[in-house]
Amino acid sequence: MFAPDIYLQRRQNLQAAGLSGLLLFLGNVDSPMNYADNTLPFVQDSSFRYFFGLNEPGLAGLIDADSGEAVLFGTDPDVADVVWTGPLPSLAERAASAALTRSQPYAQLATVLAEARAAGRAIHYLAPYRGETKIELGRLLGAHPAEVKDGFSVPLTQAVVALREIKGEEEIAQMEAALAVTGAMHVAAMQSSKAGVLEHQVVGIMEGIMRRHDWHLAYPSIFSKHGEVLHNHHHDNVLQNGDLVLNDTGCTSGEGYASDITRTFPVGGRFTVQQRELYNIVLEMQEAAIAAIRPGARYLDIHKLSASVMVERMAELGFFKGKTEDVVESGAYAIAFPHGLGHQIGMDVHDMEGLGEDLVGYGDDVARSPLFGLGYLRLGKALKAGMVLTVEPGVYFIPALVAAWEAEGRHRDYINYERFREYLGMGGIRIEDNVLVTETGSRVLGEPIPKTVDEIEAIMRM
Amino acid sequence: MFAPDIYLQRRQNLQAAGLSGLLLFLGNVDSPMNYADNTLPFVQDSSFRYFFGLNEPGLAGLIDADSGEAVLFGTDPDVADVVWTGPLPSLAERAASAALTRSQPYAQLATVLAEARAAGRAIHYLAPYRGETKIELGRLLGAHPAEVKDGFSVPLTQAVVALREIKGEEEIAQMEAALAVTGAMHVAAMQSSKAGVLEHQVVGIMEGIMRRHDWHLAYPSIFSKHGEVLHNHHHDNVLQNGDLVLNDTGCTSGEGYASDITRTFPVGGRFTVQQRELYNIVLEMQEAAIAAIRPGARYLDIHKLSASVMVERMAELGFFKGKTEDVVESGAYAIAFPHGLGHQIGMDVHDMEGLGEDLVGYGDDVARSPLFGLGYLRLGKALKAGMVLTVEPGVYFIPALVAAWEAEGRHRDYINYERFREYLGMGGIRIEDNVLVTETGSRVLGEPIPKTVDEIEAIMRM
Repeated sequence: MFAPDIYLQRRQNLQAAGLSGLLLFLGNVDSPMNYADNTLPFVQDSSFRYFFGLNEPGLAGLIDADSGEAVLFGTDPDVADVVWTGPLPSLAERAASAALTRSQPYAQLATVLAEARAAGRAIHYLAPYRGETKIELGRLLGAHPAEVKDGFSVPLTQAVVALREIKGEEEIAQMEAALAVTGAMHVAAMQSSKAGVLEHQVVGIMEGIMRRHDWHLAYPSIFSKHGEVLHNHHHDNVLQNGDLVLNDTGCTSGEGYASDITRTFPVGGRFTVQQRELYNIVLEMQEAAIAAIRPGARYLDIHKLSASVMVERMAELGFFKGKTEDVVESGAYAIAFPHGLGHQIGMDVHDMEGLGEDLVGYGDDVARSPLFGLGYLRLGKALKAGMVLTVEPGVYFIPALVAAWEAEGRHRDYINYERFREYLGMGGIRIEDNVLVTETGSRVLGEPIPKTVDEIEAIMRM
Repeated sequence: MFAPDIYLQRRQNLQAAGLSGLLLFLGNVDSPMNYADNTLPFVQDSSFRYFFGLNEPGLAGLIDADSGEAVLFGTDPDVADVVWTGPLPSLAERAASAALTRSQPYAQLATVLAEARAAGRAIHYLAPYRGETKIELGRLLGAHPAEVKDGFSVPLTQAVVALREIKGEEEIAQMEAALAVTGAMHVAAMQSSKAGVLEHQVVGIMEGIMRRHDWHLAYPSIFSKHGEVLHNHHHDNVLQNGDLVLNDTGCTSGEGYASDITRTFPVGGRFTVQQRELYNIVLEMQEAAIAAIRPGARYLDIHKLSASVMVERMAELGFFKGKTEDVVESGAYAIAFPHGLGHQIGMDVHDMEGLGEDLVGYGDDVARSPLFGLGYLRLGKALKAGMVLTVEPGVYFIPALVAAWEAEGRHRDYINYERFREYLGMGGIRIEDNVLVTETGSRVLGEPIPKTVDEIEAIMRM
């Protein structure tokens, strides 16, 4: 945990948002694999952890927005707990570690909430995303679990987003710690991706490095010679010389902060001329985007800037035709770049996505596009200093997409389908870094991870 | 998946159990980490997988117990799915891989069930253990999620247990495949547990070996120099020469079958005289238990046999006094052995625990003991050929337990507390193998993993 005062300050900042009533934060419980007592790795609810720090199941935090008083609800260990899980601090000791002076048995939470409701006080809570939390919120609030999600508090959500999206120094340090291990994982992946090796052997090598720190993946790894499959979580191909491998892998630091890094590299360690040409387009897309990041810039516009760079360079290779602006605004570019440029990152790899993507990534100044591709952009609004973003452009050759669009003649004034057909089988290329918005521009977080063609080829020769 | 006919046969066996009405098997959905789209590793519901084979989220199976007809409910992939997850087989193709000739869109399942209920047909389902499943069952059956668990079908549960607890050859082969990798993980752990190494570094090495097969842990690993903490999932100690390390780690094979193996070994590779003495007691407890396994023997009695061996040997060392039988029957022995001798293992590491521990492990011939320690025995009933069990006796020195019992003077006629106090700090020893009940006795599954003092010391010298 961070120093106790960090959590006190965060709760005070939240109270200053001017809400009235009770602010309820349910921590997560364990997620069962195939029966209740056999659990998947515990992942705490990020907003609970942000305000209350504790990384264990079965807790709840309650802040009285009017008085500022905060209470931790949980359970004191008994002798059976000690036999099974070892000596544990008391609930009061755990509360103190987050600068909380009050704690109560979890069993009292329902009563406290019932009394508050009877007194006509508002109870604000964030949107639940787990079944267990929906059922528990339903029990605590006397609502049906299927309805409880609709009752989440927009004002509380907006107040939490406004705080969590501006990262403090202690949070940046955690993200850079995650990136240091992530960099080692990516370099190991490049160096162990030899012809004849199974993809999941390489994934195992990466995970072994991370697990030696007792950390977990921030998200299911994408590691595939079929990089054109955007969320490919299968790793069952045998690598062959000439394959381009897309590796999108990040981990979660000790205090729960995510990294999210993608590198694309050739098995055998040498890009072909064609691969290098396309790789450098993606790199240019990323560099242009990073250079455009500054407070006040809308990420939607930076996405389009990055897409424009791609269209211009790929037009030189015969993939697109017509005016660049038209290819971008029509959405035709998305045949090669069908996802968003990036998203906020923090305790969640898509930071705060559980609170509602549009409440986090869009706002009064910008609405989400309905266009295919751009509709997947999770962050469109104006940037602020202290935000951390992923910048992850890509170029992909997706057989099913090219075939479907060509069959319906979509965007045929802008797309040279013949050229795309020639490149099917090439896979996909994505390059992704995690970037802090500074007062004057941006800073790529972490030590550099090999990224240019020369850097990748050099590290793969070692 | 196994050959399609295996699933057909299993469903036919279930139909032969003589139930009437519809048998509903909900597959699992993904479990979210910190927002809906960021998921923990997918683990399928074991009973769904047993009868329907498919290892992906969002499916349900329905068997008409009267007609024998079986239907798979799921969703056909669309173009967006193809872009994000790659080409997928159709629902009908997936159904065919489990020898199902009928499939329907998942959205129709609620209607099919409503019509059956309107026609007065019984709908049998197994006890849900995940929040998402409870909410979905509530939606499908018009019940409140908090109540849906109480409505599970005891006859269906008994029929499923009777089938799943007798393992087929294809299942034994999967368990031995899991054990082969598990053995390599345990040997690597012994060989990398050197003074100065952090426990989680060793865990990372083990997990790296497993992940190269794209497999997952069957349960959270216990790897600790504090083996006296029975479910110790923290790995943050630095190993020192002389520490005894308890390593309880297993993995899940490609078709979802678990291994569950414990070894205990000394950092530095040499048991002290004291450690060797106690280690050999645990080994004798395990050997006596394995030798007693045969069809018809009650596992409760084998647990007590194993405890008796411990009491006799530890009495020679001055830990217990009085008649062995009295020390066992009073429950005094549990101060050193406070858990059960073992449980069934199969697709779940505690096989079928989600269906109800007492329905799986006990029966008309034997009820669960209320005694501390013995109450944790998950399997008490008579054994049958084809069952696979863990045999995992242990001896522990648990400071909190010894202090609590001594303070209240519990079992002071049988326990020499002074002797226990001298050994506090020694930690815990457990030895665990997975054992098939055969027609004439038993067979320890898998290739041998170093287990005797000599074998462990030899492998640690390499």
